[in-house]
Amino acid sequence: MSGDRGPSVAIAAALEMLRAEPSLELILVGDTDVVRPLIAGHEDVDDKRLHLQHASEVVGMDEPPQQALRGKKDSSMRVAINLVKDGAARACISAGNTGALMATARFVLKTLPGIDRPAIISPIPAMNGHTLMLDLGANTDCTPEQLFQFAVMGSALATAAYNIERPALGLLNVGSEEIKGNDRVKQAAQLLGDSGLNYIGFVEGNDIFSGRVDVVVSDGFVGNVALKTLEGMAKMIGAYIRQEFTRNQFTKLLGGISSPVLRALKRRLDPRLYNGASLLGLNGIVIKSHGSADQVSFANAIRVAMLESDKQIPKRITRLLESQLAKEQPE
Amino acid sequence: MSGDRGPSVAIAAALEMLRAEPSLELILVGDTDVVRPLIAGHEDVDDKRLHLQHASEVVGMDEPPQQALRGKKDSSMRVAINLVKDGAARACISAGNTGALMATARFVLKTLPGIDRPAIISPIPAMNGHTLMLDLGANTDCTPEQLFQFAVMGSALATAAYNIERPALGLLNVGSEEIKGNDRVKQAAQLLGDSGLNYIGFVEGNDIFSGRVDVVVSDGFVGNVALKTLEGMAKMIGAYIRQEFTRNQFTKLLGGISSPVLRALKRRLDPRLYNGASLLGLNGIVIKSHGSADQVSFANAIRVAMLESDKQIPKRITRLLESQLAKEQPE
Repeated sequence: MSGDRGPSVAIAAALEMLRAEPSLELILVGDTDVVRPLIAGHEDVDDKRLHLQHASEVVGMDEPPQQALRGKKDSSMRVAINLVKDGAARACISAGNTGALMATARFVLKTLPGIDRPAIISPIPAMNGHTLMLDLGANTDCTPEQLFQFAVMGSALATAAYNIERPALGLLNVGSEEIKGNDRVKQAAQLLGDSGLNYIGFVEGNDIFSGRVDVVVSDGFVGNVALKTLEGMAKMIGAYIRQEFTRNQFTKLLGGISSPVLRALKRRLDPRLYNGASLLGLNGIVIKSHGSADQVSFANAIRVAMLESDKQIPKRITRLLESQLAKEQPE
Repeated sequence: MSGDRGPSVAIAAALEMLRAEPSLELILVGDTDVVRPLIAGHEDVDDKRLHLQHASEVVGMDEPPQQALRGKKDSSMRVAINLVKDGAARACISAGNTGALMATARFVLKTLPGIDRPAIISPIPAMNGHTLMLDLGANTDCTPEQLFQFAVMGSALATAAYNIERPALGLLNVGSEEIKGNDRVKQAAQLLGDSGLNYIGFVEGNDIFSGRVDVVVSDGFVGNVALKTLEGMAKMIGAYIRQEFTRNQFTKLLGGISSPVLRALKRRLDPRLYNGASLLGLNGIVIKSHGSADQVSFANAIRVAMLESDKQIPKRITRLLESQLAKEQPE
């Protein structure tokens, strides 16, 4: 029901994905008076795989998470997460208020055993494909143990969903010679070095893109700043490219001639194809679509949910964490 | 004497700048046996404006800062900073070990009154010119008071060196709805809000490029990660552009035809034109060139030193800090 563009985007994406994926079944959660007209005229979509679930309330995009959690027990967000808890749905996808989604998901689903806090993870484009990065903004300050848990979560996702057998893990740190990080990253490095995970050491911001690491781990403050910085840089360079190719009649002509190349370039950096961040560490699958997602974007978030459900990510995280913690116990 | 490429780059840049700037006078500090041959054959350069100062030692790029500080009292770095302290030079420019440069500069020059720690600042390309950003890696953990001091330093530099009358200051923070920063940034925001500075509030990583802020303030951990991230992103997009334009004979042809536009684009993002970070907050001017700087880069670092010397930046910082602190005192 929410997101910056309202329910029409999510519904259009849902219909698109139902057509594309014969095994997919979707429950649209929200005010049925609003939702029903939006699916009218799409009788070609198999209605056995499209369900409606009424929810009378909507969490606002700027609503304080605790207020949403306590005050709106029949919000579309809460009802959708309840469906996951009850086993009626295998994943929840939302373009709504991130904080409220996180708070509600934690409250309803709880975290997995051994996981203190969920983290937000997403693939980021890199030289040779992409790099998984977490936490992208759920937790400001993290203990070394939490950073270790994030590494386990990222490693499990990389293996199960992206077929990387022993994902290379890096801890995001600073590159200045004088200071090599704070105590938290140093202690987390110790924990990771002692583990059976494929920890390759500290990495810097540029390593997100270099391809030498599969999973980059940081606290949510640093991760969120890095994410917003790379998004801003990509947007600025995109604007620069447009400006330079539209500077005068001659460059406009060059832009027209070069359009197949420019389009290919745009596709490789299209943020819509990276939409769908996972709230990892919960006892259930919750996918956060960007609030401003369009249909292409939102459809991708549904794809992420299908992949994680198919690969049973929460179970894989628990198993990897157990095997790592078992190693740490003296026999 | 140091940097990744040794003294030849710095000397070539020095000769270039002496030719370009008739008012410039330079002292080359290092092993004169090494330096002298490198300036031979450049008799067209006015030798009244080119001086040599011998220094028998060199700080290694990976040497621990404290070891360099205590053990190498005749390093080129130490001797150059001593020249600033003694008033024989108005600024020191180095492509050497950042940590050692910072530690030595702090020890020899001391910080300005009211400044706890120096910070590293540099302009970053933005939509409408550039944004000044600090701290880029000198201080991992910062108190709210230190972040406030960084804001004063950045504001003074923006006004004096870049002619921005009331620079808009932003505190780098996270964009997630759930968490709006840690206690340090919240308290720093309070200090800045109560000051006479033009503080516009929290900004996110993408605002570095948006043009809505002139100075972005953060601790050195977050700032360094953001800097390396944007550098890595720019490098990757550059590689993508090259890949797409060299994919086949046809795209190579398009690349050839579009080369004036591609060159213009490259110029706008050329990191060499942003080389020369300032160690701000010291009682003297110290400019850090990138270790891998080439001649164009290093020449730009000399230009930054000239500008800061011309504008008497340390004095301007002291004055702005005093006026801010005076306001905070009850009468």
